[in-house]
Amino acid sequence: MGKQLDRIIEKVLEQIDGAGFRQKGAFNLRYNGTALCHGDSEHIKIKKKTDKQGIDIYIDAETKGEQVHIPVVVNATGMKDEVYNDFFVADGAEVTIIAGCGIHNSGCNESRHDGIHTFHVGRGANVRYEEKHYGEGEGTGARVLNPVTKIILDEGAVFTLDTAQIKGVDSTVRTTDVIMGADAKLYVVEKLMTHDSQTAESDMEVQMNGEGSSAQIVSRSVAKGASVQTFHPKAVGNARCHAHIQCDSIIMDKAEVCSIPEINARHLDAAIIHEAAIGRINDEQLIKLRTLGMTEEEAEGVIIENFLE
Amino acid sequence: MGKQLDRIIEKVLEQIDGAGFRQKGAFNLRYNGTALCHGDSEHIKIKKKTDKQGIDIYIDAETKGEQVHIPVVVNATGMKDEVYNDFFVADGAEVTIIAGCGIHNSGCNESRHDGIHTFHVGRGANVRYEEKHYGEGEGTGARVLNPVTKIILDEGAVFTLDTAQIKGVDSTVRTTDVIMGADAKLYVVEKLMTHDSQTAESDMEVQMNGEGSSAQIVSRSVAKGASVQTFHPKAVGNARCHAHIQCDSIIMDKAEVCSIPEINARHLDAAIIHEAAIGRINDEQLIKLRTLGMTEEEAEGVIIENFLE
Repeated sequence: MGKQLDRIIEKVLEQIDGAGFRQKGAFNLRYNGTALCHGDSEHIKIKKKTDKQGIDIYIDAETKGEQVHIPVVVNATGMKDEVYNDFFVADGAEVTIIAGCGIHNSGCNESRHDGIHTFHVGRGANVRYEEKHYGEGEGTGARVLNPVTKIILDEGAVFTLDTAQIKGVDSTVRTTDVIMGADAKLYVVEKLMTHDSQTAESDMEVQMNGEGSSAQIVSRSVAKGASVQTFHPKAVGNARCHAHIQCDSIIMDKAEVCSIPEINARHLDAAIIHEAAIGRINDEQLIKLRTLGMTEEEAEGVIIENFLE
Repeated sequence: MGKQLDRIIEKVLEQIDGAGFRQKGAFNLRYNGTALCHGDSEHIKIKKKTDKQGIDIYIDAETKGEQVHIPVVVNATGMKDEVYNDFFVADGAEVTIIAGCGIHNSGCNESRHDGIHTFHVGRGANVRYEEKHYGEGEGTGARVLNPVTKIILDEGAVFTLDTAQIKGVDSTVRTTDVIMGADAKLYVVEKLMTHDSQTAESDMEVQMNGEGSSAQIVSRSVAKGASVQTFHPKAVGNARCHAHIQCDSIIMDKAEVCSIPEINARHLDAAIIHEAAIGRINDEQLIKLRTLGMTEEEAEGVIIENFLE
């Protein structure tokens, strides 16, 4: 039946694991700095690291359409949790990895989780990686998440990176580095919402080293209150390749958004496109929804939800 | 009849002053570090600075549709010419300023011209500023141009900045700073071509401080040979304002282009859009023109010319 989980853990898991966390197949639930429960499957083995905090996840070549769930819950004020997770994905494997971190901080000290994730993706393998970040709790202590994601794609590998920061994260610095082999494909969808005096920074660097590699990056964000967001995606084309980066942000209240994309073509056949737009909420949509009887707040909620979906 | 100009000066002037340089109205021809000839008009007065190299140009409120020509020719190897030109444009004036610099370097030492131009543009004034940069000469000495352009726009002022680096400039760092008052409008068209082992960097910062200010920036570049181009346009919205930045580059041969736009919305009603694309020459157009009987070189020439026009 698996380990009994308390109410706070279950509530946080609902937020960060949309597919539904169950103690079945390959999984590892990290809670306040230790593994609360974990399991392997026939094709996916999870091993605790012996030299530092974290796990090694081995996904074999026979893996087809399986999910691995590795959520992290922090429910202790003043905790600083630094974890190294390494994924070894064999040639041709097909897997969905559902990570994510939720911090429940009801105290007055900063709670922080830094997940350093490295993906070694074999030839022709296909990985979907989902990562949701969430903070809650009535305490005044800050909820801080600084994820580092390194992705190394072998020939023909496909990687989909789907990240979302839902709400409640006071400070985040996201660092993502991708190195792409021949014919590798990268899809990134980043969604970010900040409110109050939160700050969020996202730095991403994609090195397209292999012939025929391609990257598509879509970033959507909403900045409310007095929050500040900074985006710095960088795409470097070192071979025949193509990339499309798109960053759209809605600013509200007294928020501030800064977008500094960098596109660098170092090869005759590197084609790179970038588009960015920052602006306030669509007034026409707002008026339309209000005519349908919604309050301004409700209408804004609907527009933001659609924008982030 | 004005001063007799030698053949090299005349040839360079043809390149950098498309409207045609004549010793009539308001003009100042700087040659190898000194004013070769100059003239005032009823509404435009040019005064030599007494504390440093350069001129002050006073454009009065009655100026309507007049041109000022202030070309610079450098025809001495090993020369470093640094010039400060200040423009005082009265409220409501309408003027076209045609600047530009051509370096003819037939020696083996670096020839360099740095023009530091400051524009104080009064309320409702309308300024068109054209600046062409060009290098030639059979010498091995480098031709270097590092222009600095500062533009301060008062309420309702309109400024059109039209810059082109045609060819032959071995190294350039362009710095442009614009500060915009209420309802001020900025239009920038930047054209840049580099070849061989040339390097070009363009840094532009536009601060939209005034309510209702707007900026439209279009940058088009072609990088040939082993040349390297870097673009760093930055638009900051500190009030209700809108801006659109568009950077398109064609890379050829072993060239490299890096585009790092920065858009920063610091106000709820700041709407800023950026688009950038880097890629090789359009293959379909190339094939079409070759079918019409052009050689590959001719076809490329036509496409590049159209792209930069």
